[in-house]
Amino acid sequence: MRQSLLFSKTLRSAPEGEETKNAKLLIRGGFISKSSAGVYTLLPLGLRVLEHINRVIREEMNAIGSEELIMPALIDKKYWEKSGRWETDVIYRTGRSKSSKEGSGAQTLEYGLGWTHEEVITSIAQQFIQSYKDLPKAVYQIQNKFRAEVRAQGGLLRGREFLMKDLYSFHADVEDLNHYYEVVKQAYIKIFERLSLPVLVVEASGGAFTKEYTHEFQVVNPAGEDTIHYCMRCGFAQNREIFDAEQHRNCSGKLEEARAIEVGNIFKLGTRFSESFELLYTNAVGKRMSVVMGSYGIGPTRILGTLVEVFSDERGILWPEAVAPYRVHLIEITSQKDNHASKANVFYATLQKQHISVLYDDRTNVSPGEKFADADLLGIPYRAVMSEKTGEKIEIKKRSERETKLMSEKELIQLVTST
Amino acid sequence: MRQSLLFSKTLRSAPEGEETKNAKLLIRGGFISKSSAGVYTLLPLGLRVLEHINRVIREEMNAIGSEELIMPALIDKKYWEKSGRWETDVIYRTGRSKSSKEGSGAQTLEYGLGWTHEEVITSIAQQFIQSYKDLPKAVYQIQNKFRAEVRAQGGLLRGREFLMKDLYSFHADVEDLNHYYEVVKQAYIKIFERLSLPVLVVEASGGAFTKEYTHEFQVVNPAGEDTIHYCMRCGFAQNREIFDAEQHRNCSGKLEEARAIEVGNIFKLGTRFSESFELLYTNAVGKRMSVVMGSYGIGPTRILGTLVEVFSDERGILWPEAVAPYRVHLIEITSQKDNHASKANVFYATLQKQHISVLYDDRTNVSPGEKFADADLLGIPYRAVMSEKTGEKIEIKKRSERETKLMSEKELIQLVTST
Repeated sequence: MRQSLLFSKTLRSAPEGEETKNAKLLIRGGFISKSSAGVYTLLPLGLRVLEHINRVIREEMNAIGSEELIMPALIDKKYWEKSGRWETDVIYRTGRSKSSKEGSGAQTLEYGLGWTHEEVITSIAQQFIQSYKDLPKAVYQIQNKFRAEVRAQGGLLRGREFLMKDLYSFHADVEDLNHYYEVVKQAYIKIFERLSLPVLVVEASGGAFTKEYTHEFQVVNPAGEDTIHYCMRCGFAQNREIFDAEQHRNCSGKLEEARAIEVGNIFKLGTRFSESFELLYTNAVGKRMSVVMGSYGIGPTRILGTLVEVFSDERGILWPEAVAPYRVHLIEITSQKDNHASKANVFYATLQKQHISVLYDDRTNVSPGEKFADADLLGIPYRAVMSEKTGEKIEIKKRSERETKLMSEKELIQLVTST
Repeated sequence: MRQSLLFSKTLRSAPEGEETKNAKLLIRGGFISKSSAGVYTLLPLGLRVLEHINRVIREEMNAIGSEELIMPALIDKKYWEKSGRWETDVIYRTGRSKSSKEGSGAQTLEYGLGWTHEEVITSIAQQFIQSYKDLPKAVYQIQNKFRAEVRAQGGLLRGREFLMKDLYSFHADVEDLNHYYEVVKQAYIKIFERLSLPVLVVEASGGAFTKEYTHEFQVVNPAGEDTIHYCMRCGFAQNREIFDAEQHRNCSGKLEEARAIEVGNIFKLGTRFSESFELLYTNAVGKRMSVVMGSYGIGPTRILGTLVEVFSDERGILWPEAVAPYRVHLIEITSQKDNHASKANVFYATLQKQHISVLYDDRTNVSPGEKFADADLLGIPYRAVMSEKTGEKIEIKKRSERETKLMSEKELIQLVTST
């Protein structure tokens, strides 16, 4: 992509009222744009990063035998009433009168915007699950959720509209759920490893649903809203809400306390929703049983924000290679007004032919200093500078390192394709 | 994919109240599930088809130099008020009190769910377009829109929540808009060709925005809501709303009248929104000018429904190859209960290794008749049957043809990869 054609530009400052590092840097870099509190547009650069995150998640969800689907955001009130979740603070309600005639039995169709989708998926599953032979099943969705958050000031960490991956699993019994729960836990660990996010698997309360613990995937970071207690020696980790130091007495490791960002959670729903929606199956001896369910969330937009909180310095973002919007930031320093046939232009075409994703700073009306500052802000892993000074060579620098190196085009291609 | 593991099953009947062919067949086939009137879930099979449609659209949008982004559904009232579109019948309004204290200056934040996004994109563009050097620009979104339709009974043809691709372009002057408008028109023609949809480019009213005609892409079909007049000889085509037979007097071809489904439209917005949102740029001689805009829509979920209306018979769907959920439907007919090591199982693995997408009907508790009926309903282009009867050969049949043929595995692979 030619930087001169990019829809966004870097901005000198973030809008007032944005306190978090993720919102400030993502807005200044042209990755996102604020629409209103807790509501953002994903600009082309931000969407590229998000799609890289989603691809990793999709691959690991498909690998554990689940299928993707998309559910609606407009969820009829009747679904929420069945589960008893219509009366909640976080739901956005909407709808309109079916008929404008008053007093004539006009019906009003009301919706709650999907802040969660257990109601919808359970009633769909009821159409397809009748027998133990139909179990187990697992499906996932990657789509926007809506939550009427009173406080929406964490940038992408707590939005009113945000992207979620939710996986739902359906089982004949608790043993099968427990088995799949562990499979999902391992898939989650793999996802966060691939995204370079150091997560702790933290025990948390099951809320009203279960007496067992659930598990949260937490990234230790001062921007987090949660407080966790953890031990790096034995792996013990609990959310403050349920923390009990007594449970750690058999380990001599030190318990740490820290703020953390929750980027995922896994949850044994049991029969909470299958009972509300009569999701039953016939077992091998002809008995009708409630399906046992699990649900498993990951927040891709929150991950986007968390990556910036974790991987940034005073000059900008340092994207991990797996999610970076582009692999190489090719910067041309030239005094020529017309650079259509420049060496950098030719090398840009070469990189594209090699399927190396590259942002080419071909702008002619911008100073070298501004170009370098933009490169640091945007955080693309490899910066490659071509100028009269570098001659036949290219000056390469990793965003995460200070040192620059001169190398040939061939060496550069080897470097960026080998890692 | 093994059919025995598919989340959905085929259903014997569609729910009551579904009158259209597209809703009936897509629900019976397990492509979609109805949530409430005009609101559907895209089940895994349906999502596969939709993603194939989206891929074609994305490729052609990227090819004309536009970049993808995602805008919010929660759009603050202030945006709609600026454009004067808050008071409209089709908007879903939602929001909640910022503070629960009454009478204490509590502010209410109200949103209109995005039924269109000119307001948001214009105010974003304002951040990035300052000079004629920043023009032209083009961005597109593929995401759900919400419209409070009183009548939502066309299946996927008219939903309350539905997927839209919208492209927005920004130009220095009308000439540049006119040029890009033609570029987009050609891209649209290419998209519909690739999707096997026979469209007519139909002149229609520009509404309040422009005195010029806009263009609709219409598929002649009795399920359509529009009426068009057209001539196959000269290509003249107009929506009934503006039809003027006088304009066709220089051609001796016959004017036809027909119902049609609108699957896309392109629109010269001019300065309608750039004036509301003060989207100005400085031209080459330092004068401040309003940016000239265009907007261009395509409805992927409506296309999904239209494909079924156009390509179906009394037994089910006939997906065009470019969008089919799978390329081959491999059907095993066996009396064995255990088919884990069957010939079909081995061939399924062979097809996967060749990267041929295949749905493998490995179900052992289903009669051959039911399997064939399901295959016709699901509409995958190539049906490949393996049974004791076919021996070393495979019986192949195209969904669109009656004739079956016996061929070797090698011949079959050649056949399905050559076209």
